[in-house]
Amino acid sequence: MAGARRERDIHAATLELLTEVGYDGLTIEGVAARSGVNKTTIYRWWPSKDALLGSAMVEADVLAIRLPDTGSLRGDLESLLRQIAALLTGPDTSPVVTALLGAATHRPELGEVVRRFFADRLGRELPMFERAVRRGELRDGVDPATVMDLLAGAVWVRALLRGQPPRPAYVRETVDLVLRGCTS
Amino acid sequence: MAGARRERDIHAATLELLTEVGYDGLTIEGVAARSGVNKTTIYRWWPSKDALLGSAMVEADVLAIRLPDTGSLRGDLESLLRQIAALLTGPDTSPVVTALLGAATHRPELGEVVRRFFADRLGRELPMFERAVRRGELRDGVDPATVMDLLAGAVWVRALLRGQPPRPAYVRETVDLVLRGCTS
Repeated sequence: MAGARRERDIHAATLELLTEVGYDGLTIEGVAARSGVNKTTIYRWWPSKDALLGSAMVEADVLAIRLPDTGSLRGDLESLLRQIAALLTGPDTSPVVTALLGAATHRPELGEVVRRFFADRLGRELPMFERAVRRGELRDGVDPATVMDLLAGAVWVRALLRGQPPRPAYVRETVDLVLRGCTS
Repeated sequence: MAGARRERDIHAATLELLTEVGYDGLTIEGVAARSGVNKTTIYRWWPSKDALLGSAMVEADVLAIRLPDTGSLRGDLESLLRQIAALLTGPDTSPVVTALLGAATHRPELGEVVRRFFADRLGRELPMFERAVRRGELRDGVDPATVMDLLAGAVWVRALLRGQPPRPAYVRETVDLVLRGCTS
């Protein structure tokens, strides 16, 4: 693997160029020029544009999430969802998300990169649910993937489709609904 | 307003062209040619491309939802969510959804059309929740918009980001989680 600093520069350059020139305009040559790392060096680590982009999405600081450990499932889910909401709406991150989503809708090969990104995220989130099971908080048979689909989906729909930034009160309400249910 | 049949033809032509040539290529001239309706006639009813597209999204048969009335909130939500899942994954409808989503991510003016579409949908779904309140099924203080964000969001994330078609068992599990909550 690349040295940590060079790898960080390459990932940052990849996501910057994605937002500036779009997926179709993104090239390893462009990333080499922006990051100051030799093109053949980049090709040695990442054999294709999609491999590089996938690595950048998973590893880049700009899309990173700090996995919370607050002592309760409610606290953990609220912290995680606030971070997802911030990613979807923040000035540095929402252009990256928008560029990826726009490209993924008409480039099937990018779909695989996005799928791997979400699988990686879910893998990182699982310990949060394992701790909740050990504390006796989670009902038997509940699939953490479905819980995350619901919560992440709500802030995606709210931010990107309804055009309403998901504020802290909305995050609390959403987590409360998924924890307690909507029935009386 | 246009005669019902001509209006239907115009709406169908609008969404067909959107999927074929994309938002940037969509023109009222193109819709006129495809639908066989005079261009000046279309302009009289819809002053702009966005007005026409907004109308097509809300009114076109291809994106229509039959609002269920099954006698229970669980039955209504499952029926509604199965229909949303079918829209997101069906061969006739998923290209329309994908084209709209891809365009909305880089055309801010289209965002307003998408927002109006989701506001219209929520307005149509509210009677379902009002019936649930009258039956004593819905907990006090639950916002139907948040329930719909969670459920629609889950199938969006599952279908479009995780690349897994939301099957009936997944729809049942998702509705069950939102009704009962995930805690023990």
